[in-house]
Amino acid sequence: MKKVKMLNLVTKEQLKKCFPDLPLGPLDGYRRKASFDWRLMKMVYDNLNTIQFKHEIYKFMEEHPLFKHSDITESLDEQRHITVKRMYAFNNENFLKIEKIIEDARLLAAESEALFMFDSSLAVKLSLTFRMCSNSIRGSGQAHHFKFVEDLENARIGGCFALTEVSHGSNAKGMRTTATYVPETKEFKLHTPDFEAAKFWVGCLGKCATHAIIYAVLISNGKNHGLHTFFVPIRDPVTLKPYPGVTVGDVGEKIGLNGVDNGFVMFDNYHVSKEAALDKLGGVDDDGNYTTPFKDPNKRFGASMGILSGGRVHITTISTAYLQKAIVIAIRYSAVRKQFGPEDSDEELPVLEYQQQQIRLLPYLAATFAMRIFCNWFSETHASMVINSYTGVDDNAAARGVEMHALSSSAKPLCGWTARDAIQHCREACGGHGYLKAAGIGDLRNDNDANCTYEGENSLLLQQTSKWLLNVWTRRHKLTAADTPLGSLTFLQNADVLLTEKCTWNTMQEMVDPANLVHAYKWLTTFVLKTTYDKYNALKNAGKGDFHAKNDSQSYNAVTLSIVYGENYILNHFYKSALEFEDPQCRSVLLKLVSLYGSFLLEKHLATLYIGGFFSGSQGQTLREGILLMCSEVKPEAVALADTLAPPDWCIRSVLGQSDGQAYKHIQNSVMSYPGALSRPSWWRDVVHWRSYVTAKL
Amino acid sequence: MKKVKMLNLVTKEQLKKCFPDLPLGPLDGYRRKASFDWRLMKMVYDNLNTIQFKHEIYKFMEEHPLFKHSDITESLDEQRHITVKRMYAFNNENFLKIEKIIEDARLLAAESEALFMFDSSLAVKLSLTFRMCSNSIRGSGQAHHFKFVEDLENARIGGCFALTEVSHGSNAKGMRTTATYVPETKEFKLHTPDFEAAKFWVGCLGKCATHAIIYAVLISNGKNHGLHTFFVPIRDPVTLKPYPGVTVGDVGEKIGLNGVDNGFVMFDNYHVSKEAALDKLGGVDDDGNYTTPFKDPNKRFGASMGILSGGRVHITTISTAYLQKAIVIAIRYSAVRKQFGPEDSDEELPVLEYQQQQIRLLPYLAATFAMRIFCNWFSETHASMVINSYTGVDDNAAARGVEMHALSSSAKPLCGWTARDAIQHCREACGGHGYLKAAGIGDLRNDNDANCTYEGENSLLLQQTSKWLLNVWTRRHKLTAADTPLGSLTFLQNADVLLTEKCTWNTMQEMVDPANLVHAYKWLTTFVLKTTYDKYNALKNAGKGDFHAKNDSQSYNAVTLSIVYGENYILNHFYKSALEFEDPQCRSVLLKLVSLYGSFLLEKHLATLYIGGFFSGSQGQTLREGILLMCSEVKPEAVALADTLAPPDWCIRSVLGQSDGQAYKHIQNSVMSYPGALSRPSWWRDVVHWRSYVTAKL
Repeated sequence: MKKVKMLNLVTKEQLKKCFPDLPLGPLDGYRRKASFDWRLMKMVYDNLNTIQFKHEIYKFMEEHPLFKHSDITESLDEQRHITVKRMYAFNNENFLKIEKIIEDARLLAAESEALFMFDSSLAVKLSLTFRMCSNSIRGSGQAHHFKFVEDLENARIGGCFALTEVSHGSNAKGMRTTATYVPETKEFKLHTPDFEAAKFWVGCLGKCATHAIIYAVLISNGKNHGLHTFFVPIRDPVTLKPYPGVTVGDVGEKIGLNGVDNGFVMFDNYHVSKEAALDKLGGVDDDGNYTTPFKDPNKRFGASMGILSGGRVHITTISTAYLQKAIVIAIRYSAVRKQFGPEDSDEELPVLEYQQQQIRLLPYLAATFAMRIFCNWFSETHASMVINSYTGVDDNAAARGVEMHALSSSAKPLCGWTARDAIQHCREACGGHGYLKAAGIGDLRNDNDANCTYEGENSLLLQQTSKWLLNVWTRRHKLTAADTPLGSLTFLQNADVLLTEKCTWNTMQEMVDPANLVHAYKWLTTFVLKTTYDKYNALKNAGKGDFHAKNDSQSYNAVTLSIVYGENYILNHFYKSALEFEDPQCRSVLLKLVSLYGSFLLEKHLATLYIGGFFSGSQGQTLREGILLMCSEVKPEAVALADTLAPPDWCIRSVLGQSDGQAYKHIQNSVMSYPGALSRPSWWRDVVHWRSYVTAKL
Repeated sequence: MKKVKMLNLVTKEQLKKCFPDLPLGPLDGYRRKASFDWRLMKMVYDNLNTIQFKHEIYKFMEEHPLFKHSDITESLDEQRHITVKRMYAFNNENFLKIEKIIEDARLLAAESEALFMFDSSLAVKLSLTFRMCSNSIRGSGQAHHFKFVEDLENARIGGCFALTEVSHGSNAKGMRTTATYVPETKEFKLHTPDFEAAKFWVGCLGKCATHAIIYAVLISNGKNHGLHTFFVPIRDPVTLKPYPGVTVGDVGEKIGLNGVDNGFVMFDNYHVSKEAALDKLGGVDDDGNYTTPFKDPNKRFGASMGILSGGRVHITTISTAYLQKAIVIAIRYSAVRKQFGPEDSDEELPVLEYQQQQIRLLPYLAATFAMRIFCNWFSETHASMVINSYTGVDDNAAARGVEMHALSSSAKPLCGWTARDAIQHCREACGGHGYLKAAGIGDLRNDNDANCTYEGENSLLLQQTSKWLLNVWTRRHKLTAADTPLGSLTFLQNADVLLTEKCTWNTMQEMVDPANLVHAYKWLTTFVLKTTYDKYNALKNAGKGDFHAKNDSQSYNAVTLSIVYGENYILNHFYKSALEFEDPQCRSVLLKLVSLYGSFLLEKHLATLYIGGFFSGSQGQTLREGILLMCSEVKPEAVALADTLAPPDWCIRSVLGQSDGQAYKHIQNSVMSYPGALSRPSWWRDVVHWRSYVTAKL
C-alpha cells in the first residue's frame, strides 16, 4: 500500500474550492487574530483524497431527503426506522469500495469521521450490519462462507455480532450458549440454557438483522471445545420473521445511540447446518471429530478474539469525532458569548478571554488535534495490517499484532475518557444554553458514553496493556526494534538510567518545551511501569496468586501505567507530526498545541512526578503556570483551529456552534420554530381545573 | 426553633416498623458481612420525624395512580403534562405546612429528598411554581403583596422566577428588560428591546405559569434605578392564554428535566399596575420619585439577590439525592454481578471484590454520607436563618448571612460536581447494563447536569467564595468567633504557624486517621488561600487592575481555594457527626467512611501538598495505599450502607438497584415487557424492500 503525502501536492486554490470562505460575523475578530491558514492546517491529519472523499459523502447526505435532521426527538421506534432507511440509502452508494481502501487506507477513518459527524446511530448501524460481520467471516470463515460476505455487501441479508451474554460480557470464557454437533443430520443444535445466557446487547439484532455471528461453546461427541463462531440465520430475509426455535427481541431504550436496535436472542435447540460454523480456526468434521490448526487452545481463543481489535481502533476514531464536534461548538460559542468586563469599560468580554474558560477548553482543543492525528494514523496502520495479513507480506506480523493489541487496549479507553471529560467541560463551558438539546452537546455525551463500555469495558481493557508491559519490563534490556514495530516501547531505552534522573527545568518555558515534555513522559511511563512491577511482585512474594496480585496492583498502578503508556505514545506521535509539518505558521501553532497537550497531560500525574522524585520544590507550580501561559498563547488561534476541525454547518447541528457565530439568532430560530412553542398546551384545562383530578384515586 | 436529637428517642422497633426486612436473595452474603445495623445508621442524617414524614410522602405517591412510572420515555408534551398533574396532586396534599417547618426545619430537606427520589421534574416544578415565588414575594414584597402568596399557596395562580435573559445570565447587572414608570396611569410599562433581552430559561413559564417574578431595570422620570423585581401577570388564570403585549413560549427540549416547561417571555410595552413592583427594598411613589431604605445601591442589589442563596442550598440537597440513588444502584449491582475468578476456582467473584471497582465506587459511597449529613444540616440551618430574619432574634444575622453566602457558593458547585463525577463512575461501573435506560443512571446524569449551571454557573459561583476568603485573609489575626458563626473559618486559627508545618505521618494508618486528615485539610486550605492571595497581589503589583488580577488568579488558585474551603467544611462536619454518633458499631463504620472520604479528597490535591512542602518523599504513595486499605475495610459494609441510603424499590426505578438483588430477573422483565420488544417492526418492509426508497430523491 502506498503512503500518500499530499501536503506538497495540494494547492491553496484546491483547498479553497473545498472550503469556501466562512460567513462574516461575530467570529471575525478572533479569526483575524489567528497566525495560520485554517484550511492548510487540515493537512496535518487529512490529505486531498480524504478531504474530497468526505465532501462527496457530505454532499450526498446534504442532498438526500432521508438525511434531513428532525427538529424534535423522535420516538424510539421512529429513530430506529429513519436510521435503517438512511443505512440502506448510504450503503447503496457504495462509497468505500475495497479497491479504494487498498489504494488509500486513510479513507476508512475519513468515512467514519463524516458519518459520525452526521449521526452516530447511522454510523454504528452501517458498521455493524455490513462491515463487522464481513470481517468476522473473512477472518474466521472458509471459502464456502464468502458467499455470505457477498450477500452482506449487496444487502440481501443483514448481519450482527453476538458475543456478550446477559451475565457475561468481559469474561468471554464464561459464555454459556452452546452449539452441539449432531452428526446424524450434520447440523449444530444451538441452545440457550436460560435468560442469563441470552446473547444480549447485540447491535442491529433488535429489529433488523437476518443473520448473526454467534459465539457459542462447541460441543461434539460429548466434549467441550470452547467458544467458536457460527453464522446463524435468525430471521427470514423475506418476511423478517424469526425462525422457529429463535426468540429474538429488542433490549429497549438506552442512554444514547437509540437509532441502533440492540437486541437479544435465545435459542431453543435450534438446528443450523454444519456450514454455519466459521471453522477456519477450528471445527469438526462430518463425524464430529474436532480439528484445529492451533496446538494451544488459548491461542485459538486469542485468534478468534483478534477480530475485536478492529473495533477498538474504530472506537478511537469515534471518540475523536464526538470530541471534535463538541470542542468546535464550545470554542465558537465562547468566542461570541460575552459576559462581564473590566471596571473601566462598558464592553463585556467574550468568555473565551477568561482564564478559567481557557483552561476548561483549550487543553481539549489541543487534545482533539493530538487524537485526530493519532487516530487517522492508527486506523490506516490497522487497515494495512489486516490487508497485509491476507497477502502475508509483513515478516514482523506477530510482533506488530501484539503491539497493536496492547496499544489499542490503551488508546480505546484513553480516547473514550478524554472525549467524555472534554464533552462534559464543553457542556458546562456553554453555560445554560449548553443545556439546550439544540446545543447538541448532550447527545454527544450520551452517545460517547457507550465508548467507555462496549468492545471491552475500559478498566478491564487496560489490563491487557499492563499485562503485556509488565512482561516486557523483565526483558527490557533485550528489546530490539523488531519487538516494537509501532515504536510504543522506545520509552524503555536506557530505562534504568532514566529513572535516576531529576528534572532540571525551572522556568515556565523550559517546562512546556515539547522536547522536555516528551522526556518527562518517558520518565513517567518508565517509573509507573517499574512501581507497578514492584507492587505486583511484592504481592506475589507475600503469597498472593497471580490473579489476586494482578487485581491488587490495579489502582494507582497498572491502570495508570496503561494510561500513561497510551498518552506517551499519542504525545510523541503528535510532536513528530508537528515537527514534520512543512508550513512554518501551522507548525508553530501545532508546537504550541503539543506544549499545551503535553503539559496538561503531565499535570494530571503531577503527584507521581513528586513521589518518584523527578519533580521537587515548586516545579509543579511552574508547570501549572506554564499551562496557563500556553492557554493564553493558544487562545488567539482557537477559533481558527475550531474552523479547521469543524464539519459543515448543516452537519454540526448546534445552535451554538455554527460558523457564522450567530448563536442567539440560531437559538431564536430554534425555539420559535419548535412545534407548539408558542401555543397553549392541549391539556391546558388540567392546569386551570386541577381540582377535577387530583384526588381521583383508582 | 428547637433542635430535635432523636437518636435517643427512637427504638429499633420503631425503625423496623418503618423499614421492614429486605427480601432474601443474592445480596444476603454481603448483608451478613456488615458490622452495623443499617436502619440505625439512618439516624446520622435523619430523625424519626423526617423518616415518618418521608414515609407519608412515599405512601401517597405509591398509591396515587398519577404517580405510576411510565415504562417508556414519553414525548416532551406528555412528560410536561404528567408532571403538571402530579404537581397539583402533590401540592393539594399540603404535606409541609409552614408550622411544621417551624417545628422541625429538617422536614424541608426530607421532602426534597423524597421528591427527588421519585422524579426530579416534579420536584423542580413544585419548588418553582409555589415556593420560590412565595419566598421572593415575602422577601421583596410588602403587606399588600401577600395576597399573592395566598393565591400561590392555594394554587389559584402559578408562579415562576424570571431573572436570566438570553444574553445575560451570570452578569445580572447586564439585564436589559425595562420597567418604566408611567405616573399618569400609575403603571409600569415592561419592555423587552430584542430577543437577546428576552427572559429565558424560566422554569414553569413555558406552558403553565400565570404570573412571573420579573427582574427588570426600573426607570422613572428618565432615571435608571437598576434591577428591581415585579410580580407580573403573564397568562389569564382562567384561559391560560397570554395577555396582550406578552409573547411567551417554551424553550423546547433540554438535556434533562424535560418534565419542567422552561420558557421565555418578551414584553411589548406591556402595562402592569404600580402594585406589581415588589418594592420593599426600593421603589417609586405615585409621582415616580424613587426611595429605598439602602443608601448604597450595591447593597440594595445585593439584598435583592440574597433570595438566591436558598436556591443554592437547595441544590446541594438535589445533587445529594441524585448521588444517593446512583450509588445505591451501583453498589447493589456490583455485589451481584459476577465476572472472572481466581485460577483455582470455578466460582466467579462479584465485581465489588475488584480493587478498581472499589476505588471507583466506595469513596463516593463515603461522599454520599458526608454530603447527606451536611446537606440536611445546611438546609435546616438556612431555614432557621430565614425564619429568624422574620422574627429578628439573631443578633449575629449579618455575619451569618455573609458566611452562608460564601459557604453555599462553594457547597453548591462542590456537591453538583461530586454528584456528576460519582454518577459517571456509577454508570461505567455498571458496565453494559448500566447503559440501559432502565438502569436509571443516564437520567440521573442528565438531570444533575443542570445543577452545575443553574442558580449560578459553578465556576463563577466559586468566585463569590474566593473573593470573601481573600478579604478574610488580610484580617485573619483579628478574627473572632462572631466572624464565623457557622465555623467555616476556624481553619485559620494559627494559620501562620500551621503553614510552617510538615507532615510527619509515615504509615497508612496515620495517613488515613480522621484527625490527621482534618489537620492536613486545614493546612491545605490555608496554603491555597495564601498562595491565591500572593498571586493576586503579585498581579496587582505588576500593574493589573482588580478585574484582571482576579481573573488571572483563578485556575489552580482561587477556584481550588473555594473548592478546598468547602471540602474542608464538609469533611469536618462529617467527622464531628461521626464522633457524636452514639451507637458504637455505626460510629466505627462512620469513622472509616470519614477516613476514606478525607483521604480520597486529599489525594486529589496531592501535588499541591508537595508543592507547598507539607508532603515529601513517598508520603503521597502511602496516602494512596491508605485509600486502598480503607476501600477494603469499607467493602464488607458497602451493601448495608447502600440499604441505609436506599429509597423504596418502586421509587428507585432501576433494574440493577432493587433491594432483592435480582438484577437479571428485572432486566428480563423489563426487556420482555417493553412495548413491541418481541414483535416485527411496523416498518419491516423498509428493511426487506430497501431498494424501493433509497434513490428516491425529492
